[in-house]
Amino acid sequence: MRSLCGFLLFMGLAGSGVLAAPDLAAQEASSTTQMSGVEVVEAAGLGKMWTFDRLPLDYLNERYEFDPGSEWFDHVRLASLRTGGCSASFVSPQGLVMTNHHCARGCIAANSDEQSDLMVDGFYAGHRENEPVCPGMFLDQLLEIDDVTEAVKAAAAGASDEDAVRLKNEAADRIEDECSSESGLRCQVVSLYHGGVYGLYKYKRYTDVRLVFAPEGQAAFFGGDPDNFTYPRHDLDVTFVRAYEDGQPVQPEHFFKWSVAGADEGELVFVTGNPGSTGRLLTVAQLEYLRDASYPLRIQQYHERVDVMRELIEMHPEREQGYRNQIFGLENSIKAVGGYLSGLLDPTLMEAKVDWEKGFRHQVMMDSELKANYGGAWDAIAEVNAKFTKMNNELVYSSFAHFRTLTIARDIVRLTADLAKPESERTTSQQAMAAAQRRIASERPLDVGYEVHLLARRLAAASEALGADHPFVVAALNGQEPMDAAHALIRDSSLGDLEVRQALVEGGVTAVNASDDPAIVLARTVDPWARELAEKVTELRAIEGANEEKVAEALFAIYGTMLPPDATFTLRLSDGVVSRYPLNGTFAPYKTTIFGLFDRAESFGHNDPWFIAPKWMAAQDRVDMTTPLNFVCTADIIGGNSGSPVINRNAEIVGLVFDGNMEMLPNRFLYRDEVARTVSVHSMAIIEALRSIYDAGALADEIQSGN
Amino acid sequence: MRSLCGFLLFMGLAGSGVLAAPDLAAQEASSTTQMSGVEVVEAAGLGKMWTFDRLPLDYLNERYEFDPGSEWFDHVRLASLRTGGCSASFVSPQGLVMTNHHCARGCIAANSDEQSDLMVDGFYAGHRENEPVCPGMFLDQLLEIDDVTEAVKAAAAGASDEDAVRLKNEAADRIEDECSSESGLRCQVVSLYHGGVYGLYKYKRYTDVRLVFAPEGQAAFFGGDPDNFTYPRHDLDVTFVRAYEDGQPVQPEHFFKWSVAGADEGELVFVTGNPGSTGRLLTVAQLEYLRDASYPLRIQQYHERVDVMRELIEMHPEREQGYRNQIFGLENSIKAVGGYLSGLLDPTLMEAKVDWEKGFRHQVMMDSELKANYGGAWDAIAEVNAKFTKMNNELVYSSFAHFRTLTIARDIVRLTADLAKPESERTTSQQAMAAAQRRIASERPLDVGYEVHLLARRLAAASEALGADHPFVVAALNGQEPMDAAHALIRDSSLGDLEVRQALVEGGVTAVNASDDPAIVLARTVDPWARELAEKVTELRAIEGANEEKVAEALFAIYGTMLPPDATFTLRLSDGVVSRYPLNGTFAPYKTTIFGLFDRAESFGHNDPWFIAPKWMAAQDRVDMTTPLNFVCTADIIGGNSGSPVINRNAEIVGLVFDGNMEMLPNRFLYRDEVARTVSVHSMAIIEALRSIYDAGALADEIQSGN
Repeated sequence: MRSLCGFLLFMGLAGSGVLAAPDLAAQEASSTTQMSGVEVVEAAGLGKMWTFDRLPLDYLNERYEFDPGSEWFDHVRLASLRTGGCSASFVSPQGLVMTNHHCARGCIAANSDEQSDLMVDGFYAGHRENEPVCPGMFLDQLLEIDDVTEAVKAAAAGASDEDAVRLKNEAADRIEDECSSESGLRCQVVSLYHGGVYGLYKYKRYTDVRLVFAPEGQAAFFGGDPDNFTYPRHDLDVTFVRAYEDGQPVQPEHFFKWSVAGADEGELVFVTGNPGSTGRLLTVAQLEYLRDASYPLRIQQYHERVDVMRELIEMHPEREQGYRNQIFGLENSIKAVGGYLSGLLDPTLMEAKVDWEKGFRHQVMMDSELKANYGGAWDAIAEVNAKFTKMNNELVYSSFAHFRTLTIARDIVRLTADLAKPESERTTSQQAMAAAQRRIASERPLDVGYEVHLLARRLAAASEALGADHPFVVAALNGQEPMDAAHALIRDSSLGDLEVRQALVEGGVTAVNASDDPAIVLARTVDPWARELAEKVTELRAIEGANEEKVAEALFAIYGTMLPPDATFTLRLSDGVVSRYPLNGTFAPYKTTIFGLFDRAESFGHNDPWFIAPKWMAAQDRVDMTTPLNFVCTADIIGGNSGSPVINRNAEIVGLVFDGNMEMLPNRFLYRDEVARTVSVHSMAIIEALRSIYDAGALADEIQSGN
Repeated sequence: MRSLCGFLLFMGLAGSGVLAAPDLAAQEASSTTQMSGVEVVEAAGLGKMWTFDRLPLDYLNERYEFDPGSEWFDHVRLASLRTGGCSASFVSPQGLVMTNHHCARGCIAANSDEQSDLMVDGFYAGHRENEPVCPGMFLDQLLEIDDVTEAVKAAAAGASDEDAVRLKNEAADRIEDECSSESGLRCQVVSLYHGGVYGLYKYKRYTDVRLVFAPEGQAAFFGGDPDNFTYPRHDLDVTFVRAYEDGQPVQPEHFFKWSVAGADEGELVFVTGNPGSTGRLLTVAQLEYLRDASYPLRIQQYHERVDVMRELIEMHPEREQGYRNQIFGLENSIKAVGGYLSGLLDPTLMEAKVDWEKGFRHQVMMDSELKANYGGAWDAIAEVNAKFTKMNNELVYSSFAHFRTLTIARDIVRLTADLAKPESERTTSQQAMAAAQRRIASERPLDVGYEVHLLARRLAAASEALGADHPFVVAALNGQEPMDAAHALIRDSSLGDLEVRQALVEGGVTAVNASDDPAIVLARTVDPWARELAEKVTELRAIEGANEEKVAEALFAIYGTMLPPDATFTLRLSDGVVSRYPLNGTFAPYKTTIFGLFDRAESFGHNDPWFIAPKWMAAQDRVDMTTPLNFVCTADIIGGNSGSPVINRNAEIVGLVFDGNMEMLPNRFLYRDEVARTVSVHSMAIIEALRSIYDAGALADEIQSGN
């Protein structure tokens, strides 16, 4: 790895004493190639999800000669919005807001009824008075970020690791409350760099949101689950809503103008939105745990569930419809987690991470103060993860998840035990108790056949992985073969009967202890052991968290704001370039067109999920087939970025993020951009669809009116 | 691996005593699942290139319930044709023949002139009298196959390995000559199963072939080298010629009828054509040599050449045009060899091969006669390949290929030495001497810059790989740094001057020995050593060949005709199914459409090699965009199959083979069909293009007239 020292000196980013040994630094700088800011960003593999209070101005200038001044960034921040789990943006002076169709499903479904399913048919209000309310939908606009790191950390000064977590949380709550009551805004303290920095994010929340336009569901999600996470792609995944205040459309000071032509190949673009969660600051030891223990077993169990469902379909073909969506969902999870895992298994990616961490740790160890504060963090994390790796089989195989019968049994055992105690001594939170009560009272029938078959496989695997004398295996098998044990635990249990459950809850600990229901007996038997295991995990997580914070602080001490923090579902700006990439021996082009949509539908005989939405079929001779439909760029996104606008140098909208390609999945942990691409709807497709397919010219006019 | 014994017993294919230990066989059969014929074919990984004299009738019946009777197969064989390096077929009662555009390039180019480049513009004769002759083009129709195994083998009975090769070649020549003079046909003895079987193939040759129709080159090769070996694909890679006899169109008794609708997904299809060469009978040891030694170094040297050309382009941008096609060609080779290597590196594929070979060898060792005859073959081959692996660096790094200066120097050294001897003592064949003379006399200027840069890299790598004290390295470096040595050898040589070369040849050994030209000095110095190395290789190849033949005979003894021989550029029938496949997280559809062609062109901004041929652009509003353009099936093909028809159960043409996808490349050695696909032009695309784009309705009528 090339030395960072030269560049750090040049940038004057000496940090907290990392370059205390200037002779050595000078020596390294002279003997190795110096790294530019762009190279530092690329070598770190931490991606490009920049916060608006620590923008990488030098990097942007160096890489793209882009230096638009602070007004540009303020404008972009204020035109950007956050909604439940997604991103959005203002796109007209009349409060029009753009997001993904898949981000507005709740609103679209809520405005559907038996006569008209807007998820299928789409919707266009046409006039303001016809814009229906989106129940529960809100939009958050980020007005300000204050750095409250000192205040939060001061609250925990001198405290133990465990107390520190609580004290900092309390301080954050206090700061949020004060901020809210003073400003009337929604205030949130955000932990960045795993606690290295705390930001106070102040939002204006719009709560009156109304539906303006949604395309047909099939147009938004052409290709369905199979095409999800892939490219080339052909989706008009867009919905427009409008923010209202006092019954009138909001007139936002800041909204994005529209670029109908969109971006050319090679052009600089930005994504402004709210990436949810990344694990790029995880240490090599944490990634190894995911790679070697957690993910392989998780994928194996996804496959197990799919296999059981397929077996059941084979035995009972009439159940296919019921399992179909679950199988699709699981296959999507296999694709996603398989994608993360493939990155961790890629020697090139992993070696780059190992090298970078080595260099980073070396920097820490070179400085006595950093060494004293943070030097031990990596080994501590490694130790915790070695324990997680050891415990993984035990944790996973003894899990009751996906076995409702067993989960209900455990809920009854724990709930009755807690209810027998005074409130102050209960080990379960109010919230968790309420959730357990809901599960116990749920009228949804148990799928006994599925649970039996899955449990039989699970027990056989558990016996193999944990050994036949493991307490969980002994209790669950109870001396029987796996299939017999599964039968006994699930089919012979009476917990499918709501009255039985209710009687047990009402009978309390006495009734539970007296019960010979096999599921209750198992839950009762393994509970002490399971609680102990859970406590151990909590304890290890606390140690891991405290040391993750140290790693993050060290990063911040050395690199300052040169490197971005992990995603936190808060507003980030990410730079990228519109560009093709090598795929399958040739290239994936930077854009697809409406021609491509019709090609793919025709290629699959217009079968689900590759049929063309009826209004598109009807408009076939009107629509300009050469219109770009989707396109890719190298901006850095992840779940939560859905609905983010893609903008050009002039802050004009050129597209709308709705997915990443398969090759982007490893970026959750190890960022690279050779083949990883953000997939967006092209701005031109939106206008063409509104005008030529959905007879929504007035909406297109409104969108273009800002220009 | 599952036992074969059950199936072999069931099929009555006891072969030459392989089941001599019936108790053991019965025991194995009862303890393992029995294999069906289809499973035997799948487990062997030898593919499905069936010869017409040993058709797998049971397999076809078992797998597809296909049992059309011998007339069907005779008809298909007689409608199939072979041409220079390609396949073709009769498609009308008037001798119309279909092949690929890329198989008829010679004819199309020969009929071009400065006014009209038919490679660019395409061609349609319209009337018989306008059909121009294809100079040198011929079509071979396979009339008969005789088994001449006994006659060939008898000729070598009792001879040593080295003599056997010569004796069998002489016997084959004799058989061919007799056959030709008796029948007036073109007769060829073909070695199948690496000499396990010899077939006498009798062809009727049509030598008056005339051009009927060719599309625009860009329509035939849309996507160029980048899209080559890939799918989805969008090429109309077709050309029609016509066979004439006595100035009149041939009226073939057998020609394929046409299915305009083509094949549906899931439908059984056949490819009938002439696959060139496969290495599926290679042993694991041979594949390991390719995997570990030969291919990695070959790919490395392709990259080396590309890198040098790119460096030269950077230094001299005006040379880009000159190197462009060479770089494309090398990138294509990297793609192809990289594809073969990826299969060898795929643990699943390789393990399947290892398992299969283990089972096969076990069968041989179980039978005393087979064991005595063939049991040692695998180890003998492994020993030879261990030697090849050891010699590989020496062979490759000391090669003069790609260095014309050095090749010419060696030619001069060897030619003068040979000319000084009486003819009977010369070590070089007449042919090889003539080729050397042509190279020496070639007026094509040397690319000194390229050779210097490439040689500098090569010498540095050679010194690393062979050690600084290796005789070749010592001679070539001559005590200098690699770049200086390369300069001295290439730039300081006078062999760029034709007169210098001529003078050396005329001056003979004396002049050569007196020469201080650095290239001559090197060639002279290393020649004795290089000759010795070459002799060693020849010797090892003879041992390898003799033992390959034993492996093939053992295969034939055990499996009889259940498994097909390696490809030999003779007529084969291959079965397959039209089917999509998993690609890039989703599916590649079984077909593409004309929509897709326009999509891909538009996506790349109509830039080379993705622009639409002018006549297609002009026909854009006339042509039916939903027309299927290309499609894929699981038939088993390889180079030489280009131009093969794809036919359905009724022996009607549904398509025209022109390529395989990337995933097919590993099939050269290890056949699998989960994702490997044959790529063909759809029959409907040909008719639609003729009628709606090329104003060639009469030709479409002729094609459809047979129905």
